[in-house]
Amino acid sequence: MFAVEVRDHIMLAHSLPGEVFGPAQGLHGATYVVDVAFFRETLSDDGIVVDIGRAHDALKAALKPLNYANLDALPQFQGVATTTEFLCKHIFDRLADAARSGALGPGSEGLQKIRVVLGESHLARAWYEGAL
Amino acid sequence: MFAVEVRDHIMLAHSLPGEVFGPAQGLHGATYVVDVAFFRETLSDDGIVVDIGRAHDALKAALKPLNYANLDALPQFQGVATTTEFLCKHIFDRLADAARSGALGPGSEGLQKIRVVLGESHLARAWYEGAL
Amino acid sequence: MFAVEVRDHIMLAHSLPGEVFGPAQGLHGATYVVDVAFFRETLSDDGIVVDIGRAHDALKAALKPLNYANLDALPQFQGVATTTEFLCKHIFDRLADAARSGALGPGSEGLQKIRVVLGESHLARAWYEGAL
Amino acid sequence: MFAVEVRDHIMLAHSLPGEVFGPAQGLHGATYVVDVAFFRETLSDDGIVVDIGRAHDALKAALKPLNYANLDALPQFQGVATTTEFLCKHIFDRLADAARSGALGPGSEGLQKIRVVLGESHLARAWYEGAL
Amino acid sequence: MFAVEVRDHIMLAHSLPGEVFGPAQGLHGATYVVDVAFFRETLSDDGIVVDIGRAHDALKAALKPLNYANLDALPQFQGVATTTEFLCKHIFDRLADAARSGALGPGSEGLQKIRVVLGESHLARAWYEGAL
Amino acid sequence: MFAVEVRDHIMLAHSLPGEVFGPAQGLHGATYVVDVAFFRETLSDDGIVVDIGRAHDALKAALKPLNYANLDALPQFQGVATTTEFLCKHIFDRLADAARSGALGPGSEGLQKIRVVLGESHLARAWYEGAL
Repeated sequence: MFAVEVRDHIMLAHSLPGEVFGPAQGLHGATYVVDVAFFRETLSDDGIVVDIGRAHDALKAALKPLNYANLDALPQFQGVATTTEFLCKHIFDRLADAARSGALGPGSEGLQKIRVVLGESHLARAWYEGAL
Repeated sequence: MFAVEVRDHIMLAHSLPGEVFGPAQGLHGATYVVDVAFFRETLSDDGIVVDIGRAHDALKAALKPLNYANLDALPQFQGVATTTEFLCKHIFDRLADAARSGALGPGSEGLQKIRVVLGESHLARAWYEGAL
Repeated sequence: MFAVEVRDHIMLAHSLPGEVFGPAQGLHGATYVVDVAFFRETLSDDGIVVDIGRAHDALKAALKPLNYANLDALPQFQGVATTTEFLCKHIFDRLADAARSGALGPGSEGLQKIRVVLGESHLARAWYEGAL
Repeated sequence: MFAVEVRDHIMLAHSLPGEVFGPAQGLHGATYVVDVAFFRETLSDDGIVVDIGRAHDALKAALKPLNYANLDALPQFQGVATTTEFLCKHIFDRLADAARSGALGPGSEGLQKIRVVLGESHLARAWYEGAL
Repeated sequence: MFAVEVRDHIMLAHSLPGEVFGPAQGLHGATYVVDVAFFRETLSDDGIVVDIGRAHDALKAALKPLNYANLDALPQFQGVATTTEFLCKHIFDRLADAARSGALGPGSEGLQKIRVVLGESHLARAWYEGAL
Repeated sequence: MFAVEVRDHIMLAHSLPGEVFGPAQGLHGATYVVDVAFFRETLSDDGIVVDIGRAHDALKAALKPLNYANLDALPQFQGVATTTEFLCKHIFDRLADAARSGALGPGSEGLQKIRVVLGESHLARAWYEGAL
């Protein structure tokens, strides 16, 4: 299995309602360093998994609504705990859409899997990996 | 598949008996940076894999007997080569016990897999990954 | 010159009023990985710059009011742009106080300089360095 | 599953023919930080996956023809787009040969999988993972 | 003293003529991860050292002629050994010009020092630091 | 000021006698990732600070007596607390000797300063910087 992974980041505010979140129940924030890996069993005719430039662009587009935002104020996140795990899946869904729509360019038709990793500090990260 | 990963570290002394270990046969030591990932197919009702705070606590408890220790002097490691690989599995077993006993709190009943990575330098690391 | 440096982190929300801040004018957030270095010309009688355990504790105490907080809502930051640079100096002042009060333990009486570095992502960081 | 991973690096020049590569069509270069992981279901009699020293040596041998080279001038790469993905597989093949020939020493007969990761910058990397 | 540091990278080919360079005498290449720090004794009226967005833009502009290039073919580097150290100074000069011309925006008039660090691998880096 | 920095590492055992060291009073160990920077005001005729290959060799030679060792058993460290800070200075002294003796090759006659950084974990490091 081949993979290509690209990195970007977002800086956002949110609160996590629920006793399990302890001090994170209050409004606070995070920088998430986001690594997205795209997987293919074989390389495309160009000898790539996916065009790295387009992968970077698709990631930036997926992150745009979250960057410099307060998630508590965004309609799409009402009633949702925007945990790191949840955000991994949210970004995965955006990139899976991009892959299926051809926005990732030549090679994207053969993508089989995407993994989204969010690093929230030097001590903790979360990820979601799913088939296309 | 979702995952959450937390980091801690230990500083210990040991020796590795056996010709294959070359200079590591003598008493020396290591800092191991320990990353433990917990995996679930779906998120818990709280929208998490496992409570990150409890995961950090469980990891710290698992590492305590090893930290600032000379493994050669510990009864539980007599007659054992405490290689990085072996220590990965040793820590995995402690955390699998913690997960099964409920010590990881809400969400831990749905954990399916744990991975323990030990980085011994910027050039080498080892890991063990197993089902629960 | 000798130095010892310890690391911790904070996760907070804030907004940065002023056109120069572009999209950071809205409420957003950040994880700051905080590295604090303590400097001495010569080592203490114990052969150290400062007790690493106490340095970690003093750093944690300095960061506590900022961690999991919304800086916009804290009285001490009203009317202030809590830029990364500003926060470096703010944390420096807390640690300089700790050093002067003896809270850093044996060795702290000989400290000559402190440097506080805040990493806000893999692409940007800021620091403040000052004499004691 | 157990794994051991070792790191080395190469510095090379190449060009990538094909419109999809944009500015990388011209002669340029890269430092690739190379991480190779070796996998075994169980540990060897020595309690290891593979001898780390021999793993480092085998990796260095696999990388030697690529290091400080202009890939465009090497006969083995004529007519090939030496993408990061392609180089992952190329290095995988060399190390799979080493494993099968016993060059990795005791433990290598039980290896089941190898993964080769090439980091080309702090923002992008690629890998190939295959069974032995 | 305050500082703000931003990161970018370049991928280039070159050769280093002279026996001292050993295998680097042949045409090869490198990824340089470039960290540029800007220093001011006091913060600007906006509470910053320099606008991070403009700093990123100025760095990107300074790196553009080097990125995806073969330095051996560029007129400005004829007869010059484009060592990592030399490139640090070359980039410093471009950014010093940007600072002096006001291209870094509000705050840049108070800049006192710039440091340019080039990381060529996980094992080696070089830097140049100079006054403005 | 120009600088070139190279990295290596050591894995050793030791104990730190004295109440201030808490749990580190017992025999334990550490991996130290060692970064050594060499400084010159101007570049040598070859356009370098110092030959990176020779710098790596000199560092390896300086570290050899410490690597895979139990410092408590080495005659040169009897009665000494081998703190991270102390080891920085110890390695500095070896490399200053190497620089003065010409072992670092062309360029070393112009070296003005050396800095030795020892990272003992992802959370703590120490350094010593001195003139030649």
